[in-house]
Amino acid sequence: MWKPDRLSDQTLFQQIADDLERRISYGEFPAGSLLPSERKLAEQLGVNRSTVIQAYAELRAHGIIESRSGSGTRVSKYKWGATPKHTPNWHRYAEGGNFLPNLPFLRRIREALGHNQTLIDFASGELAGDLSPVEEINLLMSEHEYTSYLGYDNPQGYIPLRQALVAYLKQYRGIQTTEESILITSGSQQSLYLITQCLLSPGDAVAIEDPSYCYSLPMFQSAGLRLFRLPVDDKGVRPDDIRSLYKKHRIKMVFINPNFQNPTGAVLDAERRKELLDVASELGLPIVEDDPFSLTAYDGVPPKPLKSIDPIGSVLYIGSFSKIAASGLRIGWMVAPHSVVERLADARQQMDFGLSVIPQRVAAQFLKSAYFVPHLERLRMHLLYKRDLLIEALHKELHELVSFTVPQGGLHLWCKIIPEVNDNKLLEEAIRRGVIFVPGSVYGSESGYVRFTYARARADEIGPGISKFSAALQEARVNKY
Amino acid sequence: MWKPDRLSDQTLFQQIADDLERRISYGEFPAGSLLPSERKLAEQLGVNRSTVIQAYAELRAHGIIESRSGSGTRVSKYKWGATPKHTPNWHRYAEGGNFLPNLPFLRRIREALGHNQTLIDFASGELAGDLSPVEEINLLMSEHEYTSYLGYDNPQGYIPLRQALVAYLKQYRGIQTTEESILITSGSQQSLYLITQCLLSPGDAVAIEDPSYCYSLPMFQSAGLRLFRLPVDDKGVRPDDIRSLYKKHRIKMVFINPNFQNPTGAVLDAERRKELLDVASELGLPIVEDDPFSLTAYDGVPPKPLKSIDPIGSVLYIGSFSKIAASGLRIGWMVAPHSVVERLADARQQMDFGLSVIPQRVAAQFLKSAYFVPHLERLRMHLLYKRDLLIEALHKELHELVSFTVPQGGLHLWCKIIPEVNDNKLLEEAIRRGVIFVPGSVYGSESGYVRFTYARARADEIGPGISKFSAALQEARVNKY
Repeated sequence: MWKPDRLSDQTLFQQIADDLERRISYGEFPAGSLLPSERKLAEQLGVNRSTVIQAYAELRAHGIIESRSGSGTRVSKYKWGATPKHTPNWHRYAEGGNFLPNLPFLRRIREALGHNQTLIDFASGELAGDLSPVEEINLLMSEHEYTSYLGYDNPQGYIPLRQALVAYLKQYRGIQTTEESILITSGSQQSLYLITQCLLSPGDAVAIEDPSYCYSLPMFQSAGLRLFRLPVDDKGVRPDDIRSLYKKHRIKMVFINPNFQNPTGAVLDAERRKELLDVASELGLPIVEDDPFSLTAYDGVPPKPLKSIDPIGSVLYIGSFSKIAASGLRIGWMVAPHSVVERLADARQQMDFGLSVIPQRVAAQFLKSAYFVPHLERLRMHLLYKRDLLIEALHKELHELVSFTVPQGGLHLWCKIIPEVNDNKLLEEAIRRGVIFVPGSVYGSESGYVRFTYARARADEIGPGISKFSAALQEARVNKY
Repeated sequence: MWKPDRLSDQTLFQQIADDLERRISYGEFPAGSLLPSERKLAEQLGVNRSTVIQAYAELRAHGIIESRSGSGTRVSKYKWGATPKHTPNWHRYAEGGNFLPNLPFLRRIREALGHNQTLIDFASGELAGDLSPVEEINLLMSEHEYTSYLGYDNPQGYIPLRQALVAYLKQYRGIQTTEESILITSGSQQSLYLITQCLLSPGDAVAIEDPSYCYSLPMFQSAGLRLFRLPVDDKGVRPDDIRSLYKKHRIKMVFINPNFQNPTGAVLDAERRKELLDVASELGLPIVEDDPFSLTAYDGVPPKPLKSIDPIGSVLYIGSFSKIAASGLRIGWMVAPHSVVERLADARQQMDFGLSVIPQRVAAQFLKSAYFVPHLERLRMHLLYKRDLLIEALHKELHELVSFTVPQGGLHLWCKIIPEVNDNKLLEEAIRRGVIFVPGSVYGSESGYVRFTYARARADEIGPGISKFSAALQEARVNKY
């Protein structure tokens, strides 16, 4: 983003006014549209609010913008859209359509991370840069040349990647499948989007875990689904709860994240896995198994997926590279009956015409390369180290104020905050102090929790991050003493 | 796809039966699901139908599959889903949701191209492999290393690519914009999908060109939009038609492909461009300008986009690399007011969590590299050469049976077939003879047309392809004489 030049002969406010005039004349802010508030723009540009106030005054003096108290500063209609010309009411268009906006907490987190690169990030559910196989990917990209056409891909995804995944799924996940049963998607996110949009209809009832990252995805509400909750305890969901939800609400699908569940870290108990598949086959009910974290198992023995013990085909299985290699590859996969894969591939063509071949090819090479296993070993070791740093810091700084179960895999720690706090205040105080996390209420009905992602921050940030969090918590406690 | 091994000791039918049993047991075909017809499977595997009949008989003898006359061959429920276990009714799930399937003609074309690699392809609307800058991309990928994190991308797209596009749009398209006004998308397809899903609501009326590739996109119907037609003549659409559609139907948006329109090749007349923008500003009506072909202008002087002469911001501008570099990059862009870009970026996060950084980085490097201009020059020269080969072949083989306007840019020739033909029969006869095209009826209300894409086939295939087409046409004429 553009920032004013402090060494320039021109004053800061004049530079800002000139830049805004350019952005307005180029259409970024059409006639009648709202400009950022003075506070927000000052934050973005790293200047004092008074400088922005001066810049706005300058533009107002030229009739370029108008301010009215209480309704903010807008681009002048007179100047930029003189009657009888009308700019489309873009604001109204932007409010249309079927898509609910992301949750306010998540928008706030994204905004804060966008504006302040120095925040200690316990919020982003992804790996740190040094945990991604960036060097390996560079090597693979420089070693292998594209000799074939860079055209539209097969609608189900790049065939060599699907072939590599057949071998991967057998070797690492105990799943036997065929390349025709695999759909390559833009991460797990697109698999879930395709399922909710194309296999379910508005008004359908589905069951999701509580707490669950699914609550953080407005896609479930955007698709018009009715959500019913399956409480998660330390052994995962209870299969009987599925039977009762089916009886009461005729749920049409169950979404499960059974291995190092996000956010709780829970692993679904082996007995319950069998029962769950029995319930599914008794009711003819599909189970969507999202399995992004298994290979991070710190003891090197990943839990077996439901799909590997699914004799009659009740399970749609979803996997991804995002949490075990690099989210920036945007490579996920779904294993499903061919009729489902074909349908979803056809719908996906309408949405984006498939994925680029380039990251798919890199992913296939990486899977087949000698780099894959050492990468996983290194990843597990580092995650375990970071988890322990986090736990140490929590014990030291927060001691009797928190409680949690120690996760045995995954990227997250689900932390109960014992004193009563105001979620919003806690988040804002933390941001003010330079640390960020996700409030637990984003994940469902449980309040008084925080999700700490320990995978993203640097190891040397974890201790200082928890110190800052601790100070924020002192400030946000409802009853201070 | 697996094919039987003709050198194996095992008979072909036994190999096929074994493979099917494996695919069934791995869940590709769950209990109760329909297997491919004998004819179709024989075609896929490149064997005689009798061999498939034998393989199916073998599986039937083992109780693995069941056939009933008139309802095809299905996986046995008894064997694979013994009562009281129920496999989910995947077929019914696959029929659910909001997405209409692709048009039958387009599905048929995709299927035929999938099964027969030797078809001469006048159907796929993309460049041939040797017209894509594959070598240049290989060089860029081996020269530049990723030093930064391969994590989730900025929701609006990779910032250096947006910066490169600001310069590109100014230099090549006369469009002045800012990086904050750009959204990177998975080709034009995703831009259109986001617009139809997020800025419009079911029941809204929109205007599209007739003929137009928009008719080939079920996304318009899937979004529940009411489509009204703007007839295209050799100067493009008539602005007055927009005014009358607005009066009658309160259309909320207009979709235009003004430069070397797909499929007609028409270029919107300069006078009409001004009028069209006047009508838009008079009515406060947004225009979506899709501009994928401009830089292919054979005379090296691309038509100026509407967006470059849009004083008040009525135009949402869409561009892409698919038709001028490589569709397999899946890189497109939209230029829109910031409020629109923000809204669409937020919705896109819900769908796929953004694009991979890797192809975006390649695209940014390619745009800024010394390769870009020579690539465009070579592309124009080759397209012109292929266009002329096609025209020569049409004159030679079909002469008085066809008429067309010579396109001055783009990848397609829109060809009127003078004798009355059955569209379906013509397509099937052509496929049987080894050539494929898109029937004109896919693009709207005009019948008796064919779209020939001359960019995709090799130069030495164009003459033979039209010979085959000519033979198919003789066969498919309604009144032969």
